[in-house]
Amino acid sequence: MARRSGRRPGDSGTREAIRAAAIEQFAERGYDRPSMRSIAQQAGVDPALVSHFFGSKHALFVDVVELPFDPAQAIPALFGGGDREQIGARLAGFLLSVLEEPSARRRVIGLVRAATSEPEAARMVRDLLTREIFAPVVEELRVDDAQLRANLVSSQIVGMVMARYILGLEPLASMAAQDVAAIVGPTLQRYLTEPLDRSGDART
Amino acid sequence: MARRSGRRPGDSGTREAIRAAAIEQFAERGYDRPSMRSIAQQAGVDPALVSHFFGSKHALFVDVVELPFDPAQAIPALFGGGDREQIGARLAGFLLSVLEEPSARRRVIGLVRAATSEPEAARMVRDLLTREIFAPVVEELRVDDAQLRANLVSSQIVGMVMARYILGLEPLASMAAQDVAAIVGPTLQRYLTEPLDRSGDART
Repeated sequence: MARRSGRRPGDSGTREAIRAAAIEQFAERGYDRPSMRSIAQQAGVDPALVSHFFGSKHALFVDVVELPFDPAQAIPALFGGGDREQIGARLAGFLLSVLEEPSARRRVIGLVRAATSEPEAARMVRDLLTREIFAPVVEELRVDDAQLRANLVSSQIVGMVMARYILGLEPLASMAAQDVAAIVGPTLQRYLTEPLDRSGDART
Repeated sequence: MARRSGRRPGDSGTREAIRAAAIEQFAERGYDRPSMRSIAQQAGVDPALVSHFFGSKHALFVDVVELPFDPAQAIPALFGGGDREQIGARLAGFLLSVLEEPSARRRVIGLVRAATSEPEAARMVRDLLTREIFAPVVEELRVDDAQLRANLVSSQIVGMVMARYILGLEPLASMAAQDVAAIVGPTLQRYLTEPLDRSGDART
């Protein structure tokens, strides 16, 4: 197989060694404590190579905890086009189908584990969600309370990952993905577009 | 203070030493690997004392991961009395007020952490939820799909714990508890008592 010019033999091995070291250090020590240097050291490479391949610690983090889909593609497709009354159903269907794929599911479970493991990891995951998911959702939604609505949707999605894939609650864990999506869709729809009662507004 | 007869001096210290060792071993090694003997050894007590105080490893586990409320009291009170149309609001209000209490919140976060840490711990938490929460809820609800409904409610509650208390998503994390309860109540209500679409039933 022809090698692309500009790449040296061993580049992909180096990249993978850096990624493996980063995953381990971020998982064990959170986001703040590992440095480009400590990650390079563990990977057995020159620190300059970490910058060369990933640019910054932040970019390296985003690379190693990458989401199993590209939000920049998925969010405009889900929110921008089609019937606004069906956003919840489209989003639920999309996420459940992503989660049916074993490697995607492993990655999402890894994120949830990281988030529960310690406060620094929780902060990393929160920053990732806010930047990669909430900001574009808020931009697409153009409704009041858009940031809160993104939080609420996340709460139900993370909870579904926990209940169905981590805890394995039955019968939820064994149901067909499209049945789960049909049940969860209206919840996401309400959080995204319907009026949200505060306690002051509650019916008496 | 008068000591109750039948208790020897040092009993409560022994009990606490066993509980502390059990918490550590269950958290680090899951449910299956620790034994009454290994827990006694770490606590520096005779294994017979573990049986004496807790009866069995299972009972010891239930003791150390105890829920921050007594389901045998709370569930009949929430589900049995009052307007059925307001179960979701009552349940959300109850749970959010429990979670406002720091030690209760720590205990619930500990359960979520345990559940995400490894498959064996997830199984323990699932068994605990099924036995202590779902069984009495199913008994009170007397509707179709009661077990699935209990799963769905759990998914939203666990997700809310993650989003508000572990990830700290804003603005959700800073909202007043009763406002969060007012927003989540209708979701719990739908899961508990309203028709649940399967994909075959979905509107076209």
